[in-house]
Amino acid sequence: MEVNERLQQQINFILEIDKLKNVYRQSVITDGSREENDAEHSWHLAVMAILLQEYANDPALDILKVLKMVLIHDLVEIYAGDTFIYDLEGNKSKAEREKRAAARIFSLLPKDQEKEFRDLWEEFESRNTSEAKYAAVLDRLEPLLLNSRTGGHTWRKFNVKSDKVFQKNAHTREGSVQLWNFINDLITDCIAKGYLEE
Amino acid sequence: MEVNERLQQQINFILEIDKLKNVYRQSVITDGSREENDAEHSWHLAVMAILLQEYANDPALDILKVLKMVLIHDLVEIYAGDTFIYDLEGNKSKAEREKRAAARIFSLLPKDQEKEFRDLWEEFESRNTSEAKYAAVLDRLEPLLLNSRTGGHTWRKFNVKSDKVFQKNAHTREGSVQLWNFINDLITDCIAKGYLEE
Repeated sequence: MEVNERLQQQINFILEIDKLKNVYRQSVITDGSREENDAEHSWHLAVMAILLQEYANDPALDILKVLKMVLIHDLVEIYAGDTFIYDLEGNKSKAEREKRAAARIFSLLPKDQEKEFRDLWEEFESRNTSEAKYAAVLDRLEPLLLNSRTGGHTWRKFNVKSDKVFQKNAHTREGSVQLWNFINDLITDCIAKGYLEE
Repeated sequence: MEVNERLQQQINFILEIDKLKNVYRQSVITDGSREENDAEHSWHLAVMAILLQEYANDPALDILKVLKMVLIHDLVEIYAGDTFIYDLEGNKSKAEREKRAAARIFSLLPKDQEKEFRDLWEEFESRNTSEAKYAAVLDRLEPLLLNSRTGGHTWRKFNVKSDKVFQKNAHTREGSVQLWNFINDLITDCIAKGYLEE
């Protein structure tokens, strides 16, 4: 493959993933004005990854890998759509839909980069490594922070109760005990403020 | 300082920078539906940094530093606003406004991280290192790609001519000769298509 053909594939991918800016989530941004999209969410996670690294359970984790992972973790949603964490029906078909989407989006890249991105995405999904476990903490913490600043917007909208929230965040302990503690305090505080029902 | 006070400072910063999602640029996203914001732009640059690293003039550059740089390079715009590259009047006061904004935003962080982020931002602005030069290529290439897909939206809106565009992109040669060549071809193609006037 010539360098120009390779570069053109990379540019085509870069243009295709612009669509992530139109995949909207259930969370609203802190001023409450509108829903957040996946591109903004991914950016926020990346900055958080840098700032909160000291709290990861594994002090030797590869932060570059974490950054790559959070930057691309939601690309599959360009084709599969965002599935709300408390949507029981949607979550039944999520794995299959996202697997097909991953094959499609990453196949736009040159083979070596297709493999790198697919591996990163699968590692993120599997939550089996230090990097994936830490990335998963950030992926939970960010919408919690938005909820805590918007009166529990998504919880109220979907009538989610606190036991479900504690349950869905329990795994963050595997990535960071310190941030898991912070998350538990944050949820408790949201209950006290009336943002989340027990 | 206790760990809790430190973590609270970091969380306050993470919540404050959510405002970057409301700083809109002149570029529109590829479907032409709306302007792009700085958070989306920063995410896009970060993914591009990973994918296009092989074209950087310096094969030994520190890609982790590049990622940190592009992720935070526009945070000053939360207070200073986005200054359009072809806005002569706005660019006269830009440096001073952004310097004050940097002092304000980064001071929310614990001292060590305040220094790290300030240093990264100053390095990006100075464009003196391999990492900053490569980051600057991405910061120019991304809006060019958006312009090339939206009929030259910002050029037409502000009546920008091709000589200015070539001039504003000339520095990308310092970060990547290969991407500078691609950029020149892209601009020439946009002229041929009537998106940009000579």
